[in-house]
Amino acid sequence: MKKHNFNAGPSVLPRIAIENSAKAILDLNGIGMSLLEISHRSKDFQAIMDETVALFKELLEIPENYHVLFLGGGASLQFCMVPYNLFKTKAAYLETGVWAQKAIKEAKFFGNVEVVGSSADKNFTYIPKNFAIPKDADYFHITTNNTIYGSEIHTDLESPVPLVADMSSDILSRPIDVSKYALIYGGAQKNLGPAGVTFVILREDILGKTDRPIPTMLNYKTHIKEGSMFNTPPCFAIYTCLETLRWIKNLGGVQKMAEMNKHKAQLLYNTIDNSKMFVGTVEKDSRSLMNICFVMKEQYKDKEDAFMDFAKGKGMIGIKGHRSVGGFRASTYNALPLESVQAMVDCIHEFEIINS
Amino acid sequence: MKKHNFNAGPSVLPRIAIENSAKAILDLNGIGMSLLEISHRSKDFQAIMDETVALFKELLEIPENYHVLFLGGGASLQFCMVPYNLFKTKAAYLETGVWAQKAIKEAKFFGNVEVVGSSADKNFTYIPKNFAIPKDADYFHITTNNTIYGSEIHTDLESPVPLVADMSSDILSRPIDVSKYALIYGGAQKNLGPAGVTFVILREDILGKTDRPIPTMLNYKTHIKEGSMFNTPPCFAIYTCLETLRWIKNLGGVQKMAEMNKHKAQLLYNTIDNSKMFVGTVEKDSRSLMNICFVMKEQYKDKEDAFMDFAKGKGMIGIKGHRSVGGFRASTYNALPLESVQAMVDCIHEFEIINS
Repeated sequence: MKKHNFNAGPSVLPRIAIENSAKAILDLNGIGMSLLEISHRSKDFQAIMDETVALFKELLEIPENYHVLFLGGGASLQFCMVPYNLFKTKAAYLETGVWAQKAIKEAKFFGNVEVVGSSADKNFTYIPKNFAIPKDADYFHITTNNTIYGSEIHTDLESPVPLVADMSSDILSRPIDVSKYALIYGGAQKNLGPAGVTFVILREDILGKTDRPIPTMLNYKTHIKEGSMFNTPPCFAIYTCLETLRWIKNLGGVQKMAEMNKHKAQLLYNTIDNSKMFVGTVEKDSRSLMNICFVMKEQYKDKEDAFMDFAKGKGMIGIKGHRSVGGFRASTYNALPLESVQAMVDCIHEFEIINS
Repeated sequence: MKKHNFNAGPSVLPRIAIENSAKAILDLNGIGMSLLEISHRSKDFQAIMDETVALFKELLEIPENYHVLFLGGGASLQFCMVPYNLFKTKAAYLETGVWAQKAIKEAKFFGNVEVVGSSADKNFTYIPKNFAIPKDADYFHITTNNTIYGSEIHTDLESPVPLVADMSSDILSRPIDVSKYALIYGGAQKNLGPAGVTFVILREDILGKTDRPIPTMLNYKTHIKEGSMFNTPPCFAIYTCLETLRWIKNLGGVQKMAEMNKHKAQLLYNTIDNSKMFVGTVEKDSRSLMNICFVMKEQYKDKEDAFMDFAKGKGMIGIKGHRSVGGFRASTYNALPLESVQAMVDCIHEFEIINS
C-alpha cells in the first residue's frame, strides 16, 4: 500500500534526494569512497558545502551582506545562541506556541524579556496582531510557523529593531524578503533535509555589540570565519540538504513551492471547511500552509479514534495531532505530493459517507 | 584501483555499516519509508536509539550508574558544556595537543584553569608523566588520543577528582574501565560512525554542583531526562553508529578491536622503526594505535613529495600529516582493514628500494 507521509518532522523528503543520498553513501560521485568516509577538509566535501550555501542563497535570494551557516546542535541550540550573541539589555519576543516559549525561556537566562504579544489565551490558535515592538529592544524574535498548532505568519514583518525568526518549519516554502530580517534560523528536518543540521542566515553587523564573553562554539563569528567548518560539520545531513535544494531548483524554485503549497493547503482546508464532521482549529487568516490542524466537531468527538484507524488503513502516516491540540494534523511540506493531500481528502469524504 | 582510506576523520567505516545505512535510507526495515522521513518519536526510531545506547553500554561495559547520550553539536561543543556543568572554582587540564588546548580555552571562560602537565615544549610528541592532579580541582580533563600528533594515553588514569576524557579518536578501540571516569565524550566520526553526532557517558552525581544557570541545551540534565530526545536528535548519524556497533559486536567486541588495532599498529611502527628513510615522530611509549605519524629522516626530507605521489599512486588516501607535524599520518581506526596497513608497508618498502 502506498504510504502518505504527513509527519510533522522529520518528514517527507523528495524521493530523488533520498535516492541520491543513498547513492552518495555507497560511492560519492564515483570517487570510490562513501560520503561518510571522506574528510570534511577534502575538495569533495568542500564542493558540497559550497554548492549547498550557494544554492540556498540563490533560492532564497539572500542578499550579499548576509552569511549562511550550516551547524550542528539543532534549532533548540539557537534558542540560547541568539541571546548569547545579541542580547544586551532587553529582548522582545512574540509568543505563538511552545517553540516560541522555549526560545523565550532561554532568552530569560540573559535578562529582561518583553513578550509583546501572545496567543496563549486561545491555545495559540491565532497569530497576535497590533502588537508594539519596543524600539529599545536589542532584537525582536518571532516563530514564523507554529508546527504544533498550525498557525503561520504569512508576511515579512516590519520591525524597528533587528528581526530574528525561527523558520524551522516554513523555510523554502514561499519567497521571503530576507532583507527584512537580521537573523533567520531553523532545523533542516522539514523542508530542507534530514534531522541533524541547522541553518542560520545572518547579517554580520548585528554581532559584536555585547561585552559578554561567548564560548567559541556559541559565537556566530566563529562559524562565519570558518565557513561552518570550525569543527567537523554534519556532512551527511548537509549533503541531503543539497539534494533537496537541487530538487527545489529543478522544479522552479521557491515561488513554485509556494504555488504548490497553496494549492495543497487550499484543497485540504476547503474540504475541512465544507465538512459536516471536521473543523479546523486555527483562525482562518492565521492558518499554516505547512501544518493543517483539524479536529472533529463536538457532536462527533467519539469518532476520532475510528477516523484515525480508517485513515491509517488508507496509508496515512503521522496524522495524529499533537497532544496539546488533539485531533489531527496533516503536515504538507514542500515534498509532500498533491496526490497525498488528495488521498487525505478522499479519506475524509469516504469516512463522512460511511459515518453519517 | 583499491583505495586505502587512512583519513583522520571522518574516516573509514565498516562496509556493512555503510551498505546497511544506504538501505535504511531507501527503506527502513521494510516499513516503506526512509530512515530520513520518520519521526524521532516513532517506535521505529525509538528502537534504533534504544539499541544504540544498549549496545554502546554493553560493548564498553558501562556500569549501571552511568548515562549515555547521543547529541548534536560536536565534541567542540562539549569543550564548553563540560565547564558549564562541572566548573565551580578550578579545573585541571592536561595539555597534549591542539584539541586539549581548545578544551582549555573554553574552560578559561569559566575561571581558573590549572594546566598540570604539557608536552607543548616538544610539539606534543609525548604524553606528560609525573604530573600532580590538584585535589581541589572540580575535575581533571584529558584527551586520551591526540589525532594530530599521534600520541595516546594507553591506561585509565587514577585521579583524585572527577576524571573527564575526550575520547573522540580512540573510543571503542580498546577496553576501558569506565568506572575510572566521571565523564567521557567524543565526536563519532572515527571509530563510532559518521560526522554529526557526539556521545557522552557520564555519572549523574557529578552534576548539580554549580549555582550557574545553564541554558537548557547545554545542561546535561536536560538530555539525561529526555533520553537524548529533548530536541530532534541527529537520527541518521545515530543509525550508522548502531550499524557500526553491531559490526564491532559481531567481530568479537572491543577486546577483539584492541587486538586487531595492536597488530595493525605494530606492523606499521615496526616498518617505520626498521626503515632507512622514515622515522616516527612520537616517543615510543606514547605512540597512538589510531594515528601513526612519521616523517622522512633529515637526509631524505627532499623525498617527501615524491613519496606522497608514490603512495597516492598505490591508492593511499588521507596520509598527509597535519600541517603542524608535517610528513605523513596513517590513521588506523577499527574499520581500517589489515590489508590497507600491509599495502602501506609494501608502499614504504617499494619506495625505499627504488630510492636508495
